[in-house]
Amino acid sequence: MAELSSASGVPVATIKYYLREGLLPPGERTSPNQARYGEEHVRRLKMVRALLDVGGLSIAGVREVLAAIDDRTSTHSVLGIAQHGLPAPKPRVDDESRAWAMSLIEKIGEERGWDVKSDDVVVESLVGTLCVYAELNRTDLLARISDYAELAEGLAEVDLGMLSALPTTESIVEGAVIGTVLGDALFTALRRLGHQNASARRFRR
Amino acid sequence: MAELSSASGVPVATIKYYLREGLLPPGERTSPNQARYGEEHVRRLKMVRALLDVGGLSIAGVREVLAAIDDRTSTHSVLGIAQHGLPAPKPRVDDESRAWAMSLIEKIGEERGWDVKSDDVVVESLVGTLCVYAELNRTDLLARISDYAELAEGLAEVDLGMLSALPTTESIVEGAVIGTVLGDALFTALRRLGHQNASARRFRR
Repeated sequence: MAELSSASGVPVATIKYYLREGLLPPGERTSPNQARYGEEHVRRLKMVRALLDVGGLSIAGVREVLAAIDDRTSTHSVLGIAQHGLPAPKPRVDDESRAWAMSLIEKIGEERGWDVKSDDVVVESLVGTLCVYAELNRTDLLARISDYAELAEGLAEVDLGMLSALPTTESIVEGAVIGTVLGDALFTALRRLGHQNASARRFRR
Repeated sequence: MAELSSASGVPVATIKYYLREGLLPPGERTSPNQARYGEEHVRRLKMVRALLDVGGLSIAGVREVLAAIDDRTSTHSVLGIAQHGLPAPKPRVDDESRAWAMSLIEKIGEERGWDVKSDDVVVESLVGTLCVYAELNRTDLLARISDYAELAEGLAEVDLGMLSALPTTESIVEGAVIGTVLGDALFTALRRLGHQNASARRFRR
């Protein structure tokens, strides 16, 4: 386990915790207090770290996602599970605000030909976010939400196009999880660089 | 304060905490144990909640952003401060990985005509995220990062275009903060809806 720790850069105590939490399969026992860990343990440890540190998933969320990967679930359902495990703002909203938000989301859905389920976890967080704009009386900032949706669709196409180009189902499923989790951090940072530069051009005084 | 609490939906104890932390200006004293709070207090409280709950900013981050808004700092610098206060993954990275990530970021910068500062907080988090892809041996998922950057620029243009259309400096500055904080949650949710639908078309079995 000391070797696994140095190979993965994860402290022994943390590895033991992951083993207890079922985020890491046990090593092959070689003696009462010795176990052999292989490359797949190192790989799995790195994945767990990425899901926790970058993805901000909960331990339960990570367990769910890993189980889906191991079950060789279809890419479509793993994406769903990865989305389900991801942290998303869920402010409480009253019925009136929810109705307003849902009608806006359904309008977007029609424009894009998206099939929108009101009980979906992503729709739920979108409703919550939209209602915060309303709370702050800044729905004016939603004026171009159709453009956002169009760009989001373009991004999703790039994401999925890259996934479908991958050789094995395993790499697609793992790529879907990594792409969903790291992809937000990646794109958010790029968007901010874009803001810095667009803002420098427009507003710097 | 009871009225402020019911008007804003924020518990009295929380309001007292915000007052102590300087996130909310004190009300106008009307008696030793009475103070008058106005519309701007309700508005400010809602902003604080949005920055904390949706933006995931720290108390210190919120204080910094609010100070910038109150100073009527230029929109450009408020955007920078909002970005600075935002939570971003910052995994530790070795020099070799950092050099690789920076060269990739500089390549993107050249393609987009972005001016990239290696000590910038956003570049820092981008470096960290790229290094996690490398850690996981999935740099193949970065194959189309140029497309991501192009879409991110398009998004940034929509964001900034909407801001510059706003009537007052105050609404621009506040909009920059709200747009930066809520804009990520909004776009991330739209991207996931795009994933669901693109994935359903490509992968559902």
